[in-house]
Amino acid sequence: MQIIDGKATAALIKKEIAEEVERIVAQGGKRPHLAAILVGHDGGSETYVKNKVLACEACGFTSSLIRFEENITEETLLKKVHELNEDKDVDGFIVQLPLPQHISEQKVIEAIDYRKDVDGFHPINVGRMAIGLPCYIPATPKGILELLRRYHIETSGKKCVILGRSNIVGKPMAQLMMQKQYGDATVTVCHSHSKTLKDECRTADIIIAAIGQPNFVTADMVKEGAVIIDVGTTRVTDASKKSGYRLNGDVKYDEVAPKCSYITPVPGGVGPMTICMLMQNTLSAGKKEIYG
Amino acid sequence: MQIIDGKATAALIKKEIAEEVERIVAQGGKRPHLAAILVGHDGGSETYVKNKVLACEACGFTSSLIRFEENITEETLLKKVHELNEDKDVDGFIVQLPLPQHISEQKVIEAIDYRKDVDGFHPINVGRMAIGLPCYIPATPKGILELLRRYHIETSGKKCVILGRSNIVGKPMAQLMMQKQYGDATVTVCHSHSKTLKDECRTADIIIAAIGQPNFVTADMVKEGAVIIDVGTTRVTDASKKSGYRLNGDVKYDEVAPKCSYITPVPGGVGPMTICMLMQNTLSAGKKEIYG
Repeated sequence: MQIIDGKATAALIKKEIAEEVERIVAQGGKRPHLAAILVGHDGGSETYVKNKVLACEACGFTSSLIRFEENITEETLLKKVHELNEDKDVDGFIVQLPLPQHISEQKVIEAIDYRKDVDGFHPINVGRMAIGLPCYIPATPKGILELLRRYHIETSGKKCVILGRSNIVGKPMAQLMMQKQYGDATVTVCHSHSKTLKDECRTADIIIAAIGQPNFVTADMVKEGAVIIDVGTTRVTDASKKSGYRLNGDVKYDEVAPKCSYITPVPGGVGPMTICMLMQNTLSAGKKEIYG
Repeated sequence: MQIIDGKATAALIKKEIAEEVERIVAQGGKRPHLAAILVGHDGGSETYVKNKVLACEACGFTSSLIRFEENITEETLLKKVHELNEDKDVDGFIVQLPLPQHISEQKVIEAIDYRKDVDGFHPINVGRMAIGLPCYIPATPKGILELLRRYHIETSGKKCVILGRSNIVGKPMAQLMMQKQYGDATVTVCHSHSKTLKDECRTADIIIAAIGQPNFVTADMVKEGAVIIDVGTTRVTDASKKSGYRLNGDVKYDEVAPKCSYITPVPGGVGPMTICMLMQNTLSAGKKEIYG
């Protein structure tokens, strides 16, 4: 059994990006510039955005953080989105989700110029990904593809079971894993209403768990030698931690790990790759690789 | 075993549409107007477009057929697309595929105003469908959903195996069947590289075959009581037919049918529903139901 070290892989990729940025700058090019809009003071969002800013620094990017209070109007937020769309110095930007109830997330996402939509949430990027055209691929699925690739894990023709059908992980993951140019796998998507979920898992060569239920995948659901990718990051109270909580994956790691060929731990597996893939998308945006 | 009669269902739906159009017109509304661009003289395309014009008549729509010779430039074709985008009388339009080699189909599809893209091929409609937003759903997957619904076939929680991963059938079908608001099924997509295709089929409650290989699905691949949807329409030489050929499905009908609970024949199953769903999308466009 081999542990897939997302933390080390992410560090390596950030180093690769930083080197490329220095080459670009040395040749008179421009540092990629990622902007982030943060509304309110949600603890999780604060942490994510802080980590994104730190990752930008590690990669040699310019970063801008635009903060608004919780009570900002949708109109003001949309105005800022349009400003960033027009800002020639900003290569890509994100609006950190969730947004307050009174603002339509979908409206905000659709207001972002898809050519700067490094989160890959705009319908044009979603659609282009589904039909296999160049686009920004959302960070989490992209990070998983990258881990599979860097660990030389064969996916073509394999049975890949995806647990969960969210718009940001399960669905795009399925679309990517089934495409010839990415996973080329036989893909099954299971969810809360699936009657044969356990049977599907038991015959899977690769399981990608993204349902947000701690310890959902148990040893009896896993075939000997399977590859396990755990996207779950549920906060579970843990008095032994300084923060008072720990992150818990969707997989019962201790009993599942011994049966696997490869497994991602939580934390330190898929998580670190996510921000790193946002950096890769921003680099692509800076280089105008996708939309010219 | 019950045969799913696509021909009768399509006729019924066209009648329903025609009645609604007459109500709209009686109330002072406008007849929906579908335009079609046909380039060249491909036999299949001529037939499809002719049938679309006839279906428009049956539904009480206005229809326009715009013909270009094979040697039309991409520029001229794109100019016509822009004209139709601007034409207030045209509610929806299609460009019949395939196009000649020297024209980029993707460029033409993306030039169509997504609000008039009743084929549902524009990346915005593809993306909106993937994340469950209102949009134009491509005709073939939409027709299959409609058949399942009208025959009261339970899909929620069932195992649905889709054979084929094309952009116009397999992929959108998978996206729809997995979504809670449509199929809510456990969806598996198999294709030419799938190593466990037969096993997947044998455990399927619903098989949707769209690989274009005549008689590919045999009785040994089908569970007793399964629902079989056959999207295949391969032309096979047949001296006994006046045309010299017959349409052959992906399913070996004679041996599979006795094992099924429901099955679509070829012809007369999914085929007739396709044009009928294009009519439904055009009616939606005329009523400005989706994009206002």
